[in-house]
Amino acid sequence: MQDQKDSDEKVVLLSHGAGGILQEELIKFVTSSATVRKVGEGIGIDAFDDGATVPLTDSDYEIVMSADGHTIHPLFFPGGDIGLLSAASTINDIAMMGAKCIAISSTVFVEEGFWFSELEKIMKSFNDALGSNGVALVCGDTKVIPKGQLDQLMMSTTGIGFRPKNRYIADNNVKPGDNIIVTGPLGDHEAALIANRHGIDLKTELTSDVAILLDMIESLGDFEGIHAMKDPTRGGLASALNQWAQQSNVGISLNEKEIPIRTEVRSICDILGLNPYHLASEGKALLAVDAEHTQSVLEALRSHQLGKDTIIVGVAQEENSGMVLIKSEYGGTKFMDSPYGEPIPRVC
Amino acid sequence: MQDQKDSDEKVVLLSHGAGGILQEELIKFVTSSATVRKVGEGIGIDAFDDGATVPLTDSDYEIVMSADGHTIHPLFFPGGDIGLLSAASTINDIAMMGAKCIAISSTVFVEEGFWFSELEKIMKSFNDALGSNGVALVCGDTKVIPKGQLDQLMMSTTGIGFRPKNRYIADNNVKPGDNIIVTGPLGDHEAALIANRHGIDLKTELTSDVAILLDMIESLGDFEGIHAMKDPTRGGLASALNQWAQQSNVGISLNEKEIPIRTEVRSICDILGLNPYHLASEGKALLAVDAEHTQSVLEALRSHQLGKDTIIVGVAQEENSGMVLIKSEYGGTKFMDSPYGEPIPRVC
Repeated sequence: MQDQKDSDEKVVLLSHGAGGILQEELIKFVTSSATVRKVGEGIGIDAFDDGATVPLTDSDYEIVMSADGHTIHPLFFPGGDIGLLSAASTINDIAMMGAKCIAISSTVFVEEGFWFSELEKIMKSFNDALGSNGVALVCGDTKVIPKGQLDQLMMSTTGIGFRPKNRYIADNNVKPGDNIIVTGPLGDHEAALIANRHGIDLKTELTSDVAILLDMIESLGDFEGIHAMKDPTRGGLASALNQWAQQSNVGISLNEKEIPIRTEVRSICDILGLNPYHLASEGKALLAVDAEHTQSVLEALRSHQLGKDTIIVGVAQEENSGMVLIKSEYGGTKFMDSPYGEPIPRVC
Repeated sequence: MQDQKDSDEKVVLLSHGAGGILQEELIKFVTSSATVRKVGEGIGIDAFDDGATVPLTDSDYEIVMSADGHTIHPLFFPGGDIGLLSAASTINDIAMMGAKCIAISSTVFVEEGFWFSELEKIMKSFNDALGSNGVALVCGDTKVIPKGQLDQLMMSTTGIGFRPKNRYIADNNVKPGDNIIVTGPLGDHEAALIANRHGIDLKTELTSDVAILLDMIESLGDFEGIHAMKDPTRGGLASALNQWAQQSNVGISLNEKEIPIRTEVRSICDILGLNPYHLASEGKALLAVDAEHTQSVLEALRSHQLGKDTIIVGVAQEENSGMVLIKSEYGGTKFMDSPYGEPIPRVC
């Protein structure tokens, strides 16, 4: 059917899936025809947040719901596999809205001829991650795809949790004066995958940072003073902070020398001409916290193994609304742009 | 990685995805390592029902949650497309548990190079179906897959709704004496797709029966006397009723001459050597209803356009527990087996 089309007609590009400006365009296109876009006064599809909320009638609570599709090559990578990645991704998205994921649905698309032994490893990794965080696998689906019509295996997960209705933590809630906090070195996940895929031999053992942040985030208690949280996955720090700046109508000013990026990650970026701020992390969080509560939030995060390198990287401000600025330690200031499309050069 | 394996090692077969006994085996395998399998006293993964339930604390209600993966070839088929199919599938599964889907998450996997114009049609079909049933699209994800690593487009949806905690409608709740009711002719969806794929020229216009059953099911009011509901999708009538018989520890006795199957569907089955009881419907429901409420349920269903051909096809009984028997109009009785694997001969 597709070959008969006019060659000028627009097609989906790989860069539409890369977490940048084109990704936003694709998501808006896919959802544009939806006529019911939220439930009651909840957060719906228009928020383009980490998830949605569905208020419960006659209750002080609302449901938090988040969905992710997972595709990664190779399925087993340094530091994890698609099973752990799937669990982490959805549990983290819900944690970033200030809720604990309690139940998850999982749909597995698997290619005909895939080994049961590999499938077992992936599902054990997924289920162990759920179980150790008290998340129930409640329902799902499994589809077998004819050989050659799918590359091995993909997963899709949707999680639900609860939060008090008055706990508003959202991408459009960053306030001028908020400190911008990062819980550790950025870009490890994508850099490790790229190095692995390109056969770059590193002197040190760089692995994906994929991790479930629920326990660390729960140590924040009642989330007082926390206006927004986000995990910088596809599109990296740059994409996440630009979304905050635009949705919250604030400027975000960063100190370049404070932004934690490992030497190995910088080296990989240098070799391949990548922007480290565009690389995905899978076990880090960004927080926007008011001045009054910053110290206690820093202490709570740093006392957790996954947050021991937590650091303030910048501040939100009224000036330069909608933009992210980065101040070099040598005095210059530049914009931190969102990635436009595919951040990884298509070398292979 | 896969090519290095011992050739005797077990692999996933297409027949593991066909709605039969092998499908059950695959689902049990995939979920076997899950350690938390339900929330509180809710229905969890072990029930292998149309969905799960998550009880709300301090409330008379529980959340009903259901997930589906959608893959179909061709994406646009006689009577519908993958967008409508995705919406119907999840909304119907939740309706089959006696709840109204209120919010849905949607994940779209799309192949690089797919036309925006086709994507627009599919999403409009999906979103129109949601909107006209008052279901909100609240969150989702979109992944672009490199060309050749996915056949065009797949979708995954998870829906949530609410039902009163005391409304127990489940696959393990069929009681001896219940009438088994079918809301119309069976197998249209799969027969129409097979005919289309094999280029079988039918004198009449057979199309998929894909339809959203929510409105018809809501006309049942408070569901009094209804013990179980199920839509006979993958694996057809035979798979659905065998699940009921096994999970509810009842026998199910059917009158062959009452089972509604169109002449065209029977003809396609005759030509290709298929069992019509194994073919998927996408717009029909099975109900198990106690004798007292059968008449009122029949009247409610028949007064709805989608249920005008509703008919009693059999009865549940204590004898032959775990089995489905089918009585021929000529006096013989045989077992109606679940399909084992792939019902469609792999002609193409």
